Amino acid sequence: MNDFVTVNEVGPRDGLQSQGKTLSIEERLSMINRLLASGVRSIEVGSFVSPKAVPQMAGTGELFTQLAMTDSVAYSALVPNLRGYELARAAGVKSIAVVLSATETMNQRNINMSLEQSVAVCSALLQRAREDGIEGRAYVAVAFECPFEGLTPVAVVESLTARMFEAGARKVIIADTIGAANPKSVRDVLSRLVGLDAASMLSCHFHDTRGMALANVLAALDLGVREFDSSIGGLGGCPFSPGATGNLATEDLVLMLDSMGLRSGIEPLALIDTIQHVQALTGVPLGGHSFRWLQRQADKQQGGAHV
Amino acid sequence: MNDFVTVNEVGPRDGLQSQGKTLSIEERLSMINRLLASGVRSIEVGSFVSPKAVPQMAGTGELFTQLAMTDSVAYSALVPNLRGYELARAAGVKSIAVVLSATETMNQRNINMSLEQSVAVCSALLQRAREDGIEGRAYVAVAFECPFEGLTPVAVVESLTARMFEAGARKVIIADTIGAANPKSVRDVLSRLVGLDAASMLSCHFHDTRGMALANVLAALDLGVREFDSSIGGLGGCPFSPGATGNLATEDLVLMLDSMGLRSGIEPLALIDTIQHVQALTGVPLGGHSFRWLQRQADKQQGGAHV
Repeated sequence: MNDFVTVNEVGPRDGLQSQGKTLSIEERLSMINRLLASGVRSIEVGSFVSPKAVPQMAGTGELFTQLAMTDSVAYSALVPNLRGYELARAAGVKSIAVVLSATETMNQRNINMSLEQSVAVCSALLQRAREDGIEGRAYVAVAFECPFEGLTPVAVVESLTARMFEAGARKVIIADTIGAANPKSVRDVLSRLVGLDAASMLSCHFHDTRGMALANVLAALDLGVREFDSSIGGLGGCPFSPGATGNLATEDLVLMLDSMGLRSGIEPLALIDTIQHVQALTGVPLGGHSFRWLQRQADKQQGGAHV
Repeated sequence: MNDFVTVNEVGPRDGLQSQGKTLSIEERLSMINRLLASGVRSIEVGSFVSPKAVPQMAGTGELFTQLAMTDSVAYSALVPNLRGYELARAAGVKSIAVVLSATETMNQRNINMSLEQSVAVCSALLQRAREDGIEGRAYVAVAFECPFEGLTPVAVVESLTARMFEAGARKVIIADTIGAANPKSVRDVLSRLVGLDAASMLSCHFHDTRGMALANVLAALDLGVREFDSSIGGLGGCPFSPGATGNLATEDLVLMLDSMGLRSGIEPLALIDTIQHVQALTGVPLGGHSFRWLQRQADKQQGGAHV
C-alpha cells in the first residue's frame, strides 16, 4: 500500500477564520511561508466569502497573488458561491473547495438553503471549475453527526459523495465537523465510500474534540485513505478553550505518520518554530498532544549540539 | 468478537507513586471509593515497595484491609520481591503484579539486576502466587522502546511474555513505559503475541506522551486485546508538565470504547466527579483530551434538568 500521505494544512483557513484577532495579509502570508519552510506542501490558504460575514478571511485574493508559486505546492481556497468562485479564479486559484453539509437542518441553519439546493450550488461550482481547468474539491460536512439531526445516515454520505464525484470533484473530504466520529463510525462510513471510488480520491477532516482524532486517522489509513486535513498547533480548536471545536493538530498527525513509517515530507520537529510563530501571530496558546514532547526532543538536540 | 473491555485503573498506584504530594491512607481510600462509584471494577490499589524508596505507597497493606470487598471488583497490587509478596499476602491481596523490564540496561539501572536475574525473581513470585492461590500478573515494561537501548526487539518481548505465562502469569501486560509506541509497532508486537496465547490473557499499558495512546488502543483492540490500563484524569502524567510520562487518561479510554459500542461498565460522564475529587486530593491539574468535552456534556445535562 502507498506509504505517502498528504497532509493538507487548513490552519490558514479553518484555523484563522474562528479567531478573535484578524491577521493582516502580511501576517497570513508569513504563516504560510513558515508552513512551507516546515515542509508542508498542501495548504488551504483561505476562503472567498463575504468580508462582512468573515472579516478574518478578507483579502484572500490579494494573499493569493503574493504566494510563492511553485509546482510542488498545492494551494486551495474555499468558495461558497459563484461570486466567490469568480474572485478565486481572478486571483489565479488553481484548486477550489466547496462545502456541502450532509443534513437538511444544517443547510437551512447555516446557509438558508435546502440540502438539494446546496447540492445544486456545489455541483454547479464543481462543473464550472472543471470547465475552467481548475481542480474541484468537495467537503461533505457533518458526515458523522449533525448538531441538529444527530447521527448522519451512512447512505446519505455515500449518496452525496457520489454526487460530488459526478459533478467533477477530484477529491471528496469527509468532514467530522463537530468532532463526533469514532473509529467504528469512521470504518462504517469509509468502508462504504472506498467502494464508490478509489480511496485515493478521499480525504478526511477530523476534529479532536473528544481526543479520538488520531485513532480515527488510523481507521481511515487502514481503509486506504492517504490524505488528511490538519491545523498547525490545533489552531481553530485550542484544547484549552471550552468552546473549542478542536482541530486535529498537524504535529500530532505528522508525528504519528512518521512513527509508523509513512511519509508526509514533513519533519515533525520542523513544525515547532512554525507553531511558536503562529502562536505569536494569533495570541492563542497552541500545541497538540505531542507538542511538549516534540519541544523536549528539540531541546535535547540543541543541547547536544552545544556540548 | 467479545465486546466487553476491562479498564484496569492504575491511578492509585502508577498515578500516585510519582506525585510530589503523598496522600494519606484515608485519601487513597476515598480515591478508590470514588472510582468504584464511577463504575470502575478493576483497580491497581498500590505497591508493596520500600516506604523509604516510594513513600507515596507506604501503608498499602493497611489500605487493603479497608477496601470494600466484593466479588465484582478486582483489586491488585504490585510486588517487587518476596518480602513485598509476603506483605501483600498477609494483607489479603488476591492478585499480584510483577514488573519485568525487557532490556538488560533497564534492569541494571532500575533494580541492579541482570535481565536473567529479573526473569528469575518474577518467575519465582508468579510460581509462589500460583501455589498460594493468588492471581499472578506480569508487566513486560519498555516493551516497545527502552530509554537506554532504543527499540526493543519483538522477539525478546515474545520470549519474555512466554516465560511469564510459563511461570504462571494469568495475564501479561505489555507496557509502553516511555510512551514510544505507535499503531504500527503495537501491531508488530501484538500480532506475534496473540499467537503465543489467547489475546484474552494480554493487556496493554499505554502512555500518551506523544498523543498516540488511543490510536494504540485501537490497534490492540483490532488484534483482540480486551484489557487496558489507564489512569483517572491522566494522573501520573499531566500533559502540562514537561517531565510528564503521560498516562492514558481513563476518561479518554472509556469514551472511545463507549463511542465504539464496546462495553466497559463505566459511564464516561460518571468519571467527571472522580477526576475533580482526585484533582483536589493531589493538587495536580488533571483531565485527558476529552475532559473538557465531557464537562460540557455534563453541564448541558444538568442545565436541562433545571429548566
